[in-house]
Amino acid sequence: MPVNFVKNALQRLVPVKVNGVTQVPYRGVGKYKPTGRKYAPKIASCADFPADGNKTVPTLKDALIRAGLSDGMVISTHHHFRNGDLVSIQIFDIAHELGIKNLVWVPSASFECQAVLIKYLEDGTIHHIEGSMNGSLGRFTSQGKMKGTGILRSHGGRYQAIQDGEIKIDIAVIAAPTADAFGNATGDRGPAACGLLGFALADSQYAGKVIVVTDNLVPFPCIPWQIQGNNVDYVVVVAQVGIPEKIVSGTTEITKSPDRLLLAELTSRFCDEAGIIYDGFSFQAGAGGTALSIGIYFAGILRERGMKARWARGGSNKYLVKMLEDGLVEYILDGQTFDLDGVRSMRENNGHVNTSPFTSYNYHGKGNFASMVDVVILGATEVDVNFNANVVTHSDGTLLHGIGGWQNCIFSKCTILPVPLFRDRIPVIRNEVTTICGPGELIDVIVTERGIAINPLRTDLIEKMKNSKLPIKTIQQLKDEAESICGIPEKPKFTGKPVAIVKWVDGTVIDTIWQLAE
Amino acid sequence: MPVNFVKNALQRLVPVKVNGVTQVPYRGVGKYKPTGRKYAPKIASCADFPADGNKTVPTLKDALIRAGLSDGMVISTHHHFRNGDLVSIQIFDIAHELGIKNLVWVPSASFECQAVLIKYLEDGTIHHIEGSMNGSLGRFTSQGKMKGTGILRSHGGRYQAIQDGEIKIDIAVIAAPTADAFGNATGDRGPAACGLLGFALADSQYAGKVIVVTDNLVPFPCIPWQIQGNNVDYVVVVAQVGIPEKIVSGTTEITKSPDRLLLAELTSRFCDEAGIIYDGFSFQAGAGGTALSIGIYFAGILRERGMKARWARGGSNKYLVKMLEDGLVEYILDGQTFDLDGVRSMRENNGHVNTSPFTSYNYHGKGNFASMVDVVILGATEVDVNFNANVVTHSDGTLLHGIGGWQNCIFSKCTILPVPLFRDRIPVIRNEVTTICGPGELIDVIVTERGIAINPLRTDLIEKMKNSKLPIKTIQQLKDEAESICGIPEKPKFTGKPVAIVKWVDGTVIDTIWQLAE
Repeated sequence: MPVNFVKNALQRLVPVKVNGVTQVPYRGVGKYKPTGRKYAPKIASCADFPADGNKTVPTLKDALIRAGLSDGMVISTHHHFRNGDLVSIQIFDIAHELGIKNLVWVPSASFECQAVLIKYLEDGTIHHIEGSMNGSLGRFTSQGKMKGTGILRSHGGRYQAIQDGEIKIDIAVIAAPTADAFGNATGDRGPAACGLLGFALADSQYAGKVIVVTDNLVPFPCIPWQIQGNNVDYVVVVAQVGIPEKIVSGTTEITKSPDRLLLAELTSRFCDEAGIIYDGFSFQAGAGGTALSIGIYFAGILRERGMKARWARGGSNKYLVKMLEDGLVEYILDGQTFDLDGVRSMRENNGHVNTSPFTSYNYHGKGNFASMVDVVILGATEVDVNFNANVVTHSDGTLLHGIGGWQNCIFSKCTILPVPLFRDRIPVIRNEVTTICGPGELIDVIVTERGIAINPLRTDLIEKMKNSKLPIKTIQQLKDEAESICGIPEKPKFTGKPVAIVKWVDGTVIDTIWQLAE
Repeated sequence: MPVNFVKNALQRLVPVKVNGVTQVPYRGVGKYKPTGRKYAPKIASCADFPADGNKTVPTLKDALIRAGLSDGMVISTHHHFRNGDLVSIQIFDIAHELGIKNLVWVPSASFECQAVLIKYLEDGTIHHIEGSMNGSLGRFTSQGKMKGTGILRSHGGRYQAIQDGEIKIDIAVIAAPTADAFGNATGDRGPAACGLLGFALADSQYAGKVIVVTDNLVPFPCIPWQIQGNNVDYVVVVAQVGIPEKIVSGTTEITKSPDRLLLAELTSRFCDEAGIIYDGFSFQAGAGGTALSIGIYFAGILRERGMKARWARGGSNKYLVKMLEDGLVEYILDGQTFDLDGVRSMRENNGHVNTSPFTSYNYHGKGNFASMVDVVILGATEVDVNFNANVVTHSDGTLLHGIGGWQNCIFSKCTILPVPLFRDRIPVIRNEVTTICGPGELIDVIVTERGIAINPLRTDLIEKMKNSKLPIKTIQQLKDEAESICGIPEKPKFTGKPVAIVKWVDGTVIDTIWQLAE
């Protein structure tokens, strides 16, 4: 089947149709305006649900059959259990056992533990993935082996797509560390506590059928109800929904690498000199050793000056929780907990608030939290001389990561990417990135160990830093330095076949992931 | 304009069309099954909202103009400020000033303080009310003076109607005791604290434009966010949103009337003997002196036996809060706070949870809380020999009350109506009620000072009580006793003109309110 392509507003070649659905090419930040109405789920009736509120059914298989599991359906899961997820695979084991074909899997993110699903991608149980194809699933996709074309979306873009009806979920399966028989569910307690369930919010609101799976059934009411039973069809009790030691699998220690510590220090000093750290400011640092270290720097500055942050966006971890409990941050608005201190704090501290892609990231809402953050610190695999950045593919062309909240976060008042100038002698700053995930106009500062580049659009920041002793350079200078050390990087070799597309926060197509030539 | 009528499943004459819209006559409990999809609001874009989250506009008038206020629009408000509401009237003052006509007002309930709106019903600023017409507004309606036909809905029915698109709100105005500039809002704190804002949830989710009005603007984030700023278009700061001393206006003291105390005692003894009070049971007693007294009895029984209720549905008040704080109730699932202890407790106790008509009452959801309650104690103006009951009109035919959550609550496992056998020498138990608000099949027990009648459908309760020393009688016996004392009551005289309809929880028409003949 020949695929037609067009160039979008970033001059990237994108397919006109994907999996049979016509796409809108990326038009620029804020340029595409939706005209339709939100997706409207069918009206339910209490007459069809048990009056005593007991929605339990014996097994996940029963629940899936009652939910009408059949060929071509769209099945969604969330990733709050991260690499300790035990439920997603079961769904497709059951589907395979029942001989169901061509399912579309819509996880909020995928993890290496789900690499076993490759067999179902190969045998046609799963047609394609809309979500993220990480690690082995990414390699499989890059090799052109997935039957359909993958669709990568940010956390906010996933909410947007479900809300807008671009994704019509037939069955949402929501694994929950604690739930009641009515379907109220929470992630902040129970043997497999994972903090919150915000990534499953859209699924619970818009899916045709919603199944809650738990290993900790409590008497009604399950408080808090992060997922509301009023949206739930069936509840299934299983022996174990997640492997606790693998749920909390993010980097939880600050970096010891001198290079990364330098990046953290330069970033913090930049924020301080640029006047970004003030009494009542807000920040989001994310996970990863460098980000954690930046948090430590921020805490030090606040403590020293008797100031506090009004709010921080999580991914929460023990360092952020300590800031909250030490009174250096008034509120953590948390999208996912990265360690057990985060889980405990969300359970115990009223100032540690669970959020969702709806509140924080959805671009098709009446505003969201991400654009209100004073400064966000993020990563990237590549950045080009126009500040366009890549977070999904590596420089060899392989798809290895999801977008996460990255696209949504770059709407903050100041987006800083601390990145090494090169990795394994491959320059990170380059003429052109393999895949554009975010347009350069939203990326304000690149911090490398050899210099800091400010986006020329941010004349205010350039002005503020003009007398700084920090190594302020142009992005071109950084690129040249990288190339003088590593040489000009080779471009990866692709076939002309798209294996996945990258959606922008508004549902338009910002770039294409191509099949690797080898 | 001639109106066509049909008889519904309860043999009540109901109009085929109301305000130009075709109606579905009541078909029986659980008999009408919705087939459509939920109402789908327009998709918004963050590109149209301020990136810094500041949605404040100078005045309510500005906000209404920006929201496009124009002839025939549907305007909604909530009633959490009860008789201390200061915002609803302003909306229509502004509309009148702008020369706007034929608005439809959709309050979640009306109060006597809003009787001044009669002038706008008279001059055509407001065409009709969908919500409740209490007191003076009810009399005005009963006299046939409203231009359109009123539509009475329960709290759950209001959510259902908005969700299902029967009511399409153009502009929702949400008065909030505390809010931030993004529109996050809470009722549990601030100078005009009213507890929660759950009655405005549907409005915030489905209205075209949402305006939050507050007198207590706090820096982002306003926590908790009972109303989510992501659904809000404009924020207006005013000097005062509500009169605190009038916000908490419900009965907050237990009754001293010997008759009412007897009703309370009989009801509690009935519940006890029928085995309804067990360790882990649930109840809803509502406001009013009798209900409060029943709560006290329940507390005594629980304390004496070392038991506790798992949950109670509020309307909360100081007695229910004391039960929570004494460990006699684990959770209060609260729909509205009736006194300042309720407000304080909701702010302070994690076990005092704010709910909404979505969680508690919406019949077009995947279940709701109301049907899970073990016992609910409610009032009625009249009950007929088939246990059908009336809560909106008096026996003289005048519309004076809204339905509140009454229709929703009667889905509980046991619905008990403690009522006096007669009021002002007018029998409460009668052959036929003036208006049927709830079908007798859902009403289980009538408790009067002269005897207790169990619905013949509840053979289980009749069996349990067969050896009771309580004065168990038939409903016919109670009616005969009332009539032997007061005589057979006269029927009110009506013209043939419908002035309002009463919707059932599923959107069908259960009865008609007629114009008074005088």
